[in-house]
Amino acid sequence: MLEEIRSRRSIRKFTAAEVDDQTIDTIIEMGTWAPSGLNNQPWKFVVVKEKEMLNKLSQQTVYAHIIKNAPVCIAVFLDNKASYNREKDIQAIGACIQNMLLAIHHLGLGGVWLGEILKNRKQVEKLLEVPDGVELMAVISLGHPAEKTGKGNRKLLDQVIIGRKWRV
Amino acid sequence: MLEEIRSRRSIRKFTAAEVDDQTIDTIIEMGTWAPSGLNNQPWKFVVVKEKEMLNKLSQQTVYAHIIKNAPVCIAVFLDNKASYNREKDIQAIGACIQNMLLAIHHLGLGGVWLGEILKNRKQVEKLLEVPDGVELMAVISLGHPAEKTGKGNRKLLDQVIIGRKWRV
Repeated sequence: MLEEIRSRRSIRKFTAAEVDDQTIDTIIEMGTWAPSGLNNQPWKFVVVKEKEMLNKLSQQTVYAHIIKNAPVCIAVFLDNKASYNREKDIQAIGACIQNMLLAIHHLGLGGVWLGEILKNRKQVEKLLEVPDGVELMAVISLGHPAEKTGKGNRKLLDQVIIGRKWRV
Repeated sequence: MLEEIRSRRSIRKFTAAEVDDQTIDTIIEMGTWAPSGLNNQPWKFVVVKEKEMLNKLSQQTVYAHIIKNAPVCIAVFLDNKASYNREKDIQAIGACIQNMLLAIHHLGLGGVWLGEILKNRKQVEKLLEVPDGVELMAVISLGHPAEKTGKGNRKLLDQVIIGRKWRV
């Protein structure tokens, strides 16, 4: 598993091959196994496979080409009715998305977490006809990979661990 | 990996056994492999193993007993100097924490994501002597599990997938 966590990369180009419905459900199920504060599970999902809808969705972001050419997009929402603390709930949504991205990678598929589309949050919510209070957090585009990925750049541990209080 | 995502649970009781430094570094490294917007990697970490410091930290939360009896806590921060969009950065922090929790589980350890302590964010930041703008997001307590875990309750997929726009 550690090697899969290390080797996951954003995939933005996909082949024309479909992703079957069972697989999509498995990916979303993995998202739901994330922890959340008070186990409130504040996430909601809309699955988009319809070509016309993907085209409309794509118009809401500068990354239109990614959405238009993906066989599936999963829009991830925060359900404000289930929310108990906005910051903690948004962290939980991030954990949920990460589980989905890891599952996508594990299943030999590729995906990318799109956030730029949030600038048109309201339009996307209207387009996907979600209930009031269900707020767009991200869109994940996924499919069968049609690109090779790089090494990935990360800061060194010494740059991110800013304190060590050791047992004396 | 999917089975490990499914079987991860919060562990709140730990044996007295230490967690070695190499393992702690591996867990944090896994956190850093999370994606972030513009790859800004907005996370910072402080590792606490010192008994006296764990006691002081524990006083900042009603879950004092968990922190006091854990061999290690990792405090996770948002570095506001690296931040480009607060909501997206907080999602990235959630993804980072989830990677760490999965790594902890995979390594046969147990951990719990503590958020209640955020009510005393400023005191914790002062206690752990982090620079200005480095903001507490969560504390993860971890160690060798000393409790069995349950099945876990999650909503059914039909309750969280609120729309399906299928390809026609």
